[in-house]
Amino acid sequence: MSARADRLARIALTWLLEPGHLIGWEMVQAFGAPETLWRILNDPACHSATRNTAAARLSAGDPLQTAEQLLARAGELGARLIIPGDAEWPDQVGDLRTIDLRSTRERVDRDTRPPLCLWVRGPLPLAATLARSVAVVGARAATEYGQRMASEIGFDLAGKGWTVVSGGAFGIDGAAHRAALRAGGITVAFLACGVDRPYPAGNTAMFEQIAGSGLLVSEWPPGAEPLRHRFLVRNRLIAAVTRGTVVVEAAARSGAVQTLGRAQGIPGRVAMAVPGPVGSVMSVGCHDALRNLPGTRLVTGAADILEEVGAIGDDLAPRPRGHDQDRDSLDEDSARLLEAFPAGRREATADQLSAHTGIDPRTTLRRLALLTELGFITSQEGTYALVPRRRSPRR
Amino acid sequence: MSARADRLARIALTWLLEPGHLIGWEMVQAFGAPETLWRILNDPACHSATRNTAAARLSAGDPLQTAEQLLARAGELGARLIIPGDAEWPDQVGDLRTIDLRSTRERVDRDTRPPLCLWVRGPLPLAATLARSVAVVGARAATEYGQRMASEIGFDLAGKGWTVVSGGAFGIDGAAHRAALRAGGITVAFLACGVDRPYPAGNTAMFEQIAGSGLLVSEWPPGAEPLRHRFLVRNRLIAAVTRGTVVVEAAARSGAVQTLGRAQGIPGRVAMAVPGPVGSVMSVGCHDALRNLPGTRLVTGAADILEEVGAIGDDLAPRPRGHDQDRDSLDEDSARLLEAFPAGRREATADQLSAHTGIDPRTTLRRLALLTELGFITSQEGTYALVPRRRSPRR
Repeated sequence: MSARADRLARIALTWLLEPGHLIGWEMVQAFGAPETLWRILNDPACHSATRNTAAARLSAGDPLQTAEQLLARAGELGARLIIPGDAEWPDQVGDLRTIDLRSTRERVDRDTRPPLCLWVRGPLPLAATLARSVAVVGARAATEYGQRMASEIGFDLAGKGWTVVSGGAFGIDGAAHRAALRAGGITVAFLACGVDRPYPAGNTAMFEQIAGSGLLVSEWPPGAEPLRHRFLVRNRLIAAVTRGTVVVEAAARSGAVQTLGRAQGIPGRVAMAVPGPVGSVMSVGCHDALRNLPGTRLVTGAADILEEVGAIGDDLAPRPRGHDQDRDSLDEDSARLLEAFPAGRREATADQLSAHTGIDPRTTLRRLALLTELGFITSQEGTYALVPRRRSPRR
Repeated sequence: MSARADRLARIALTWLLEPGHLIGWEMVQAFGAPETLWRILNDPACHSATRNTAAARLSAGDPLQTAEQLLARAGELGARLIIPGDAEWPDQVGDLRTIDLRSTRERVDRDTRPPLCLWVRGPLPLAATLARSVAVVGARAATEYGQRMASEIGFDLAGKGWTVVSGGAFGIDGAAHRAALRAGGITVAFLACGVDRPYPAGNTAMFEQIAGSGLLVSEWPPGAEPLRHRFLVRNRLIAAVTRGTVVVEAAARSGAVQTLGRAQGIPGRVAMAVPGPVGSVMSVGCHDALRNLPGTRLVTGAADILEEVGAIGDDLAPRPRGHDQDRDSLDEDSARLLEAFPAGRREATADQLSAHTGIDPRTTLRRLALLTELGFITSQEGTYALVPRRRSPRR
């Protein structure tokens, strides 16, 4: 078959069957795309449900003519088509073949096969751009806390040279993309619609920025609408192309949690979730995943994430150390109490410290408890002592 | 040996060597308490460091005379001594012999051997009281969030007939004890000082309540002071006597995290931690444990905790289900939008809903996103549809 015939047939098949179609993908592996297309259109012995799926779309036009038109339209938009074997093709999407969803107990049909082709807009080569990438995803109706966490994570990952992948939605996705852009880093949006009409329209300016310095990617051809079920199908790609997926905030059983389930099911991908306050409905999905999705790792920021996906010395997260807490981050009373310890002996009672600082006894006791908890001081029988800097107080 | 001689020797040995002393405990297993006491006091061939430890205390009085006095004093206070073999003795403390602390990489000396005896104040039999018990521990300088979580957990566990064990401190410990008392349930405080002078004095009223309806327990005799290192030694008991330990809030490397490490190291005990907002210094210890202490389970409330420790049908936590979210918990705009869906068709556009409710279009879109995220409605190409109650919207 000619290379062009292969490309056109893959476009046509994706248009006829929607991405991820199990039988369609298996047939392409066995027969190649052109013969698969011919069989579905002409061979009465071909799998009947697959033929029926395709037939429903045929009234809208001839598949190969449609494919030609889509390719031409993409060219006008500055978008390109890539298929397996192209230098840009991210081979890791092939791992979707071996996805294991037993632990998520989900019904699976059309969302676990690799894509037949991808539409791409933007100045970077896709495969190389995804080589060091992390997906940062979550709720559209994110809280301020969630958006702040997504921004911090997106900014820090991009600043360390990692590509931030997300879905372009309002809330967590948008916060992660925008932070990566602010960091001057690379971000890639995987869409559930055509790369010519990224959804939602409210993020248009952001999408234009991403198309200018990063990449917009979709399995659906130019003009395709963001139908609801397409988001779930798209999610498997986000899980497959990255080294790990972080859910920042998600309600119970949300799409982001489904993406996490895909990441967990693909060998070599790390499923991660950011904790939040118990009682926040937007952290329920994260906490549920951390409890019930085996292997999901709790992460509190980019350092933790890179410890999970990087396994590179430079990226190792520092273990939190109470006694290394910066004094500058203390409240004013606590800082004054620390300074009030006598320089030589380093010991004092609460009464002495209260008298010395003029802080009332009750507040003094509370602050001393805080300072003890943080490892700045120790207490024994009502006497407090400074802990020398850079030594562990509680081992 | 007589039973009384055994009791007195155990008191004397604990007074001489402090609880958890490795050689002391091993000798008692080999020779019994009276002979162990004799050897330490009189046998030059006995382990020299152990003899030296004891010698430092001998200037304060004769060990057996001191033991007699302590027993008499306990009797006056309404406290009692229990030792292995007594009906009240919690045999599970013996599991401390097999504690495995490899994953915590801690230096271990005197805090991993079982107690030789326990002093108890309160109306309940200790072993039976601890049969269904959970430890709820954490920072003294807890945040409001932490205290609320500790209260909820303590109240719910006690309300379901579980004994709430903690350490009697300010902050998380006190919140858990008090909530258990409010629930009319049972709570037990393990102290690092005598049961006659529970520390801190600021919790005296609470301790009296606990002594009236629950139990105060200590390895240290009446009159013993709450020296700093004793808290860490005490912590192993809290981990050993309960089915699981929950850390609600803790700074990095705090005493509560050490307790969690003990629970994780004892076969059959569950280590649990409550997540919180990233950025709260009082959740760092919890998040660190969830990342780095193998097997630590994330819990968001009593239902999760009982799922971990209970393995009893009644105690299984409900899986969070977005669509079961109570409508009453929604904000006013969201509730109005839900009610604005036309009764028959169950579908509407954002414009229609905005016009119908008078809620501005921007707020309408945000609330519709929230309602979609929560599973009340679905959206497809700008049309929203009610999800029938009690069916899963996103599978």
